[in-house]
Amino acid sequence: MATKETNTKLWGGRFTGSVDPVMMQYNESLTFDRVFYSQDIRGSIAYARANTKTGILTQHEFSEIERGLKAVQKEWESNAFDIKPEVDEDIHTANERRLGEIIGKDIAGKLHTGRSRNDQVATDMRLWLKEQLDRLEDYLIDFVKVITARAEKEIDALMPGYTHLQRAQPIRWSHWMLMYGSFFASDLQRLRELRVRVNKCPLGCGALAGNPFGIDREAMARELGFDGLIMNSLAGVADRDFVVETMQWGSMLMMHMSRWAEDLIIYSTGEFHFVQLADAYSTGSSLMPQKKNPDSLELLRGKSGRVFGQMAGLMMSVKGIPSTYNKDLQESVEPMLDHVKTIGDSLQIATGVISTLAIDREAMLASLTPDMLATDLADYLVRKGVPFRETHHISGQVVALAERERKPMDQLSFAELQGVDGRFEKSVMEVFDYEKSVEMRSAKGGTSKAAVLEQIEVLRLALEAKA
Amino acid sequence: MATKETNTKLWGGRFTGSVDPVMMQYNESLTFDRVFYSQDIRGSIAYARANTKTGILTQHEFSEIERGLKAVQKEWESNAFDIKPEVDEDIHTANERRLGEIIGKDIAGKLHTGRSRNDQVATDMRLWLKEQLDRLEDYLIDFVKVITARAEKEIDALMPGYTHLQRAQPIRWSHWMLMYGSFFASDLQRLRELRVRVNKCPLGCGALAGNPFGIDREAMARELGFDGLIMNSLAGVADRDFVVETMQWGSMLMMHMSRWAEDLIIYSTGEFHFVQLADAYSTGSSLMPQKKNPDSLELLRGKSGRVFGQMAGLMMSVKGIPSTYNKDLQESVEPMLDHVKTIGDSLQIATGVISTLAIDREAMLASLTPDMLATDLADYLVRKGVPFRETHHISGQVVALAERERKPMDQLSFAELQGVDGRFEKSVMEVFDYEKSVEMRSAKGGTSKAAVLEQIEVLRLALEAKA
Amino acid sequence: MATKETNTKLWGGRFTGSVDPVMMQYNESLTFDRVFYSQDIRGSIAYARANTKTGILTQHEFSEIERGLKAVQKEWESNAFDIKPEVDEDIHTANERRLGEIIGKDIAGKLHTGRSRNDQVATDMRLWLKEQLDRLEDYLIDFVKVITARAEKEIDALMPGYTHLQRAQPIRWSHWMLMYGSFFASDLQRLRELRVRVNKCPLGCGALAGNPFGIDREAMARELGFDGLIMNSLAGVADRDFVVETMQWGSMLMMHMSRWAEDLIIYSTGEFHFVQLADAYSTGSSLMPQKKNPDSLELLRGKSGRVFGQMAGLMMSVKGIPSTYNKDLQESVEPMLDHVKTIGDSLQIATGVISTLAIDREAMLASLTPDMLATDLADYLVRKGVPFRETHHISGQVVALAERERKPMDQLSFAELQGVDGRFEKSVMEVFDYEKSVEMRSAKGGTSKAAVLEQIEVLRLALEAKA
Amino acid sequence: MATKETNTKLWGGRFTGSVDPVMMQYNESLTFDRVFYSQDIRGSIAYARANTKTGILTQHEFSEIERGLKAVQKEWESNAFDIKPEVDEDIHTANERRLGEIIGKDIAGKLHTGRSRNDQVATDMRLWLKEQLDRLEDYLIDFVKVITARAEKEIDALMPGYTHLQRAQPIRWSHWMLMYGSFFASDLQRLRELRVRVNKCPLGCGALAGNPFGIDREAMARELGFDGLIMNSLAGVADRDFVVETMQWGSMLMMHMSRWAEDLIIYSTGEFHFVQLADAYSTGSSLMPQKKNPDSLELLRGKSGRVFGQMAGLMMSVKGIPSTYNKDLQESVEPMLDHVKTIGDSLQIATGVISTLAIDREAMLASLTPDMLATDLADYLVRKGVPFRETHHISGQVVALAERERKPMDQLSFAELQGVDGRFEKSVMEVFDYEKSVEMRSAKGGTSKAAVLEQIEVLRLALEAKA
Repeated sequence: MATKETNTKLWGGRFTGSVDPVMMQYNESLTFDRVFYSQDIRGSIAYARANTKTGILTQHEFSEIERGLKAVQKEWESNAFDIKPEVDEDIHTANERRLGEIIGKDIAGKLHTGRSRNDQVATDMRLWLKEQLDRLEDYLIDFVKVITARAEKEIDALMPGYTHLQRAQPIRWSHWMLMYGSFFASDLQRLRELRVRVNKCPLGCGALAGNPFGIDREAMARELGFDGLIMNSLAGVADRDFVVETMQWGSMLMMHMSRWAEDLIIYSTGEFHFVQLADAYSTGSSLMPQKKNPDSLELLRGKSGRVFGQMAGLMMSVKGIPSTYNKDLQESVEPMLDHVKTIGDSLQIATGVISTLAIDREAMLASLTPDMLATDLADYLVRKGVPFRETHHISGQVVALAERERKPMDQLSFAELQGVDGRFEKSVMEVFDYEKSVEMRSAKGGTSKAAVLEQIEVLRLALEAKA
Repeated sequence: MATKETNTKLWGGRFTGSVDPVMMQYNESLTFDRVFYSQDIRGSIAYARANTKTGILTQHEFSEIERGLKAVQKEWESNAFDIKPEVDEDIHTANERRLGEIIGKDIAGKLHTGRSRNDQVATDMRLWLKEQLDRLEDYLIDFVKVITARAEKEIDALMPGYTHLQRAQPIRWSHWMLMYGSFFASDLQRLRELRVRVNKCPLGCGALAGNPFGIDREAMARELGFDGLIMNSLAGVADRDFVVETMQWGSMLMMHMSRWAEDLIIYSTGEFHFVQLADAYSTGSSLMPQKKNPDSLELLRGKSGRVFGQMAGLMMSVKGIPSTYNKDLQESVEPMLDHVKTIGDSLQIATGVISTLAIDREAMLASLTPDMLATDLADYLVRKGVPFRETHHISGQVVALAERERKPMDQLSFAELQGVDGRFEKSVMEVFDYEKSVEMRSAKGGTSKAAVLEQIEVLRLALEAKA
Repeated sequence: MATKETNTKLWGGRFTGSVDPVMMQYNESLTFDRVFYSQDIRGSIAYARANTKTGILTQHEFSEIERGLKAVQKEWESNAFDIKPEVDEDIHTANERRLGEIIGKDIAGKLHTGRSRNDQVATDMRLWLKEQLDRLEDYLIDFVKVITARAEKEIDALMPGYTHLQRAQPIRWSHWMLMYGSFFASDLQRLRELRVRVNKCPLGCGALAGNPFGIDREAMARELGFDGLIMNSLAGVADRDFVVETMQWGSMLMMHMSRWAEDLIIYSTGEFHFVQLADAYSTGSSLMPQKKNPDSLELLRGKSGRVFGQMAGLMMSVKGIPSTYNKDLQESVEPMLDHVKTIGDSLQIATGVISTLAIDREAMLASLTPDMLATDLADYLVRKGVPFRETHHISGQVVALAERERKPMDQLSFAELQGVDGRFEKSVMEVFDYEKSVEMRSAKGGTSKAAVLEQIEVLRLALEAKA
Repeated sequence: MATKETNTKLWGGRFTGSVDPVMMQYNESLTFDRVFYSQDIRGSIAYARANTKTGILTQHEFSEIERGLKAVQKEWESNAFDIKPEVDEDIHTANERRLGEIIGKDIAGKLHTGRSRNDQVATDMRLWLKEQLDRLEDYLIDFVKVITARAEKEIDALMPGYTHLQRAQPIRWSHWMLMYGSFFASDLQRLRELRVRVNKCPLGCGALAGNPFGIDREAMARELGFDGLIMNSLAGVADRDFVVETMQWGSMLMMHMSRWAEDLIIYSTGEFHFVQLADAYSTGSSLMPQKKNPDSLELLRGKSGRVFGQMAGLMMSVKGIPSTYNKDLQESVEPMLDHVKTIGDSLQIATGVISTLAIDREAMLASLTPDMLATDLADYLVRKGVPFRETHHISGQVVALAERERKPMDQLSFAELQGVDGRFEKSVMEVFDYEKSVEMRSAKGGTSKAAVLEQIEVLRLALEAKA
């Protein structure tokens, strides 16, 4: 056997003792994984119950363990759990340590038979996350409901639709809201799909190779409310995909939020003035008395970076690590906790913002300009059989004429229009009507009233599909 | 109206003319979006057909357009399409320009009526991507099939299972392969789910506000093989989620690949020597004659970064941009093309690697050490009613004793074992059997033969679920 | 020695032959690293020259190698180099293969003595990148020069300054430009610092362990224009930090660009109308005749994601790989090439945009509103000894009064102001003067004319500091 | 003026009151920015002092403010500061609120004159970060010092050098350590460069437009220990580059750490067994009694993802936001705090690991194999004038012969070698000497003893360069 050199104090480094307090702190997870105390206890009860069938525990021992764990749970709930800083490395060891104090080590010492913290932590995390996803689903549904309710009520408000942030064509304000409604409904659909993958049970995978006492994993999964099992024990302890996927989902949702916030921030400038945030979602300036800033929206936009960073960071942590459990995976916990909290808060804030936002219909109308009907003008000639490419060019000439004459396009005389193209007839003047323009877009998905109402119906159906 | 200052040559900048060649090149997309030529043409034919029903086109005009577009398609297919560099900005304008040359501008000029490049490019991209996802699905199924076939055939090979890259417990080599099989099967499930969202039709959304000629969007969607419509026209042109989601999927898949490659790279070192890559997937050194390097695996691992970067980059591009179409979205195309190619190539390479890999069963066995049975030793006493926490401690003492005595744990005498704990009986010597240890893990998901065979069945069912 | 199982055709995979064409293509790099042909040749000449001193080459052999390599260089330059697809894996093997054909293998076969592609590719990349960074430095200096020239000339234009995109205080348009000037000047400083680290010579590191023929690395470094050596041969082949650092730099620069573009996109909306892009940097719509879109700015903003993704991707590729060269590092080349091109193009586009932009001073003035002087109103009382916290409150009351009275704050009568606070005197009416407000901010860095002119001087000095 | 619709309770949303507690919590920053209490107070004292020269404050008022702020500081230091949850939104308002309670609002109300939280928070953050960077510099220097000390002491230990994780050539263990030493020395150089940019003073920039009372910014900067001013007031409040740059630096450093940890994790496997971690940096298994896991190294590797995610997240938050201050920038604070803490902890852990690591020289030697001298064999013939390309081929044949004969290359007889190539002479047998091979690499940067000692000198000089 090889000679080993144990170097103490040789290299002049900071640390040469047998314990490094920085390492203790770097390694411990109880600071954050204590949030799983209840899931950890439920998992242990299910595990102990299953081990009465394998013969590891007697019925009496199980009863004691159950009684003890419920007592531990009560301590957490009443904030009476007394953490032993140097001893309780994580929620699993903390709970088991306390259980032993309550029911005695002889029985408590049997709880962990055939189990490892590797399958235990994965079980805790999945149980916790599943419950959180259900909460997020509720917030998301609420948000989309407010969007649809508001879209229905304010369907008559017209505003400029933009491409490249340049005025493009008139649209309904509701149509704008429903665009985001459709994005968030897709987020809802994705959430429901990923929840199925989160909700698989790894308990009984052991450290990596499986359980040697023939434990009934399906019974445990049922008791804990899982939809099924992780079917490979190595995968059960190696896999943090359920966190990555949740964060990919959350990052996409917040990417939508960032665009929604961006639109509303621009619409709430002095120059646009389409919307005004409620005071509850604005703040003032410590220096400038006149300011009212859309802080809520800016935070929503800014936090799209935060949640993206969490996803990106975890993916890098997982990249290239060898199979099964490596301590690197501990880096999945804190980001998951903050991610879920940030998404939940953000959905509530967004719902609050849209619920209390005031719109300024007059400012919206004032921002509509006749040149936004240039396509309608081209379409007018299309209906007379002129090829679109030609009508597009003619309409462009009318736009240029109006600019040259320094008057809005709808102030050009019929004679001036005819000067551009003889095929314009008197009826052309009816083109310059925003309401009419909007109602023309009646194909599915368009901005006419009927098309918008249909979108509301479709969205509402999507919400109902809750599993 | 405001005074405008048109500054030419005032600021000393490089460019002051009316056209900037760098801008031309910065803006154009034909270099890469020409890959959509066929989708663009199919979309145009469907669009034209639908416009015969709206009265925009006569049946004759449609026939001409269809004839012309098929001719254009032939030119692309035979590499005869003559690109006009300064004129053809993108695939849409290139195809329409050429169509006009073939059938005349009077009819060709009607094709684009009520349509915009905004809905057109979204349609092209979705059609293309759907087809590619089907191709990727086939590759993925092939890969998992090879994994299961190999797992079935080599089920008798034992190897060390690792946690923290430290020898942990004996497992089956097939069990290791199936861990990754299960990851890739999850990727397959996700692929099938996202394909549904990719395969929605945005055609008929116009520039943003919808189609003003009452076009039958559902008929177009059916003709093009879409599963349904994007139901909000603003969303139809604003949405690149289908690309983001594809890249999130691809990044997760390659994250799995990076771990798989990492394991195999480590297993193919001289020190482990469990596997040896086929020559086709290795390369030599220009300097060192003895080298055989696992380049294929390193590239797979390295490309997990590349595809992640594409996803991260697009998410940043989309973050915070205002609603509907902005030119920023052009940045979705090139990454999508390379992402899909990289995933496709990688799946093929991985399949090739695993198909041709040689394993060294003796090296695997040689790497198994008796201390990997320390848990089995603890479990032995558990079966005699000793609490696991105590047996864990006792087994630890045996490990320490063996280290002190500088002999493998299975070379300790029965007396030595009894010296540690009197409850050890003669039968304890049977614990030191790797095959037995593996077969003990027979609970679902474990590494026993029956449990592994069940995993193979489950995986095969997952493959069949193809929609 | 262990039994090896060589499995052919057993697993049903796609590939079972001795060569996989997908792997050939996945592995080769000549498609992109051919861009280094000139650096590769210069490096080889320097290497050969140094090896005449070590005795590896005679003077005649060196002359032949130099002659041959210059001939190869000419072939590349005149596009006459004939690539052998299955043979030329990368630029290094291609150049050496061709050299052998020109001067014979006996001499050509001595070129690579003691060298590896590991140190060779690192040398090529660093040489290439150093030259590119010099080019980028020129573009960056040009861009900032245009900013300062324009800031000097248009120093009289006033506009609203924004915080939270809400009108805050009047500022000079030049002050706005110089904010970005200062960001880009920091990018310039960073560029000059990182260039030093890029410009270190790895040639002579060999495959990993160093050169066994006592080659004079410093002489080679001098000949190639490097600033010094990579002083650890393992580091020389392992290190792609110079690429990562360049990309971190480029991502930061483009992050600045994204904000600059965002401001200008908002300022060029119909609602703001402060600026108008030259036609060369705008495009029209295929559907809407009136549109003029700021595509150049949107592409600049969008490409901030692209370059960030390249940086993020490479960092993930490098994360966690073992030391020295691994094939994963090949993934640094393509992103580097595109990164540098994108930064170079973007700087040129941005320079073109700012050189040709028209500003609308009247629109800027029209967007200034009296409530933006609320701080000045508070400051007025501060000068009379009233604590700022109180004046802030009083000024807030004036803002509220104006809103209630539905008139601009400067239209309130002196009596009305005195009604809010008796300490207002007649001179208060002079507060409502945007020019005066701007000139008050005369502390260093402020928006007064003198302060802005000083900033211009500081920026110009920063440009001159070129090493 | 436009009609505004104030909708309360109309949309069915969660929130309709005048205050949303979720928003309060979403918006507040005191939870984390309280860490800046001392910097905030120092900044306020400097600001107040400067305002005695502008006439805003009398000397008495300044003394009172200074006295009060020092009292507030004492409260924070003794943990006696009583936070008012609904009132104290951030550290700035908390400190000012408390100051007013101590010295009265009449004087305290003058402190904020001409200042904004925008320049205040930027000042606090930069002051805090500068101090932290100095702390990190110390840790980094310590780490590299241990590396050099150890490299000097253990210079005689030989080990395999790897490329592609395949045994390549023998190297010194010290050479391996110094590779990382050189990476971390580059990190040190970068740190010193970025510190200069962090340490610029934004105080006196006001909300955005500058200070209207002619405050002496340079005096404040001097008092606070800054190296200079942010010279554009808009930039002063808009810029979080100093955080981004710090995180880019930290991510690069941790990328190095991830490779260092990866190497050591592999070297500490049972199969390699080159190194053994001290108990203080390892942990056991809750299930497997024999396990000793390199948790410290895995955490270091995992946290490379965490810090990367923080950098990526902030870059996304900043991307595309408009100029000057937006609330999105609040998202820079929490990541910065955790980033700096993580880097600091990680450097300490890494120093502890390398200080206490045991190496197994015999295992290192045992892993050296004669085929690793194949290049030396080729070089032998090179010295006899055979072109390297030919010697490479010949040496490859010897490797193949040894494999065929199933004996190590150095066990081939001289006759067998001559059978491959007649130019081999008796002296060839001297090639098979690892020490000799290592000593041959004596060119700068190589693995010979002299070359390694030179590297140590170079590194030590780099450490001394502290500004």
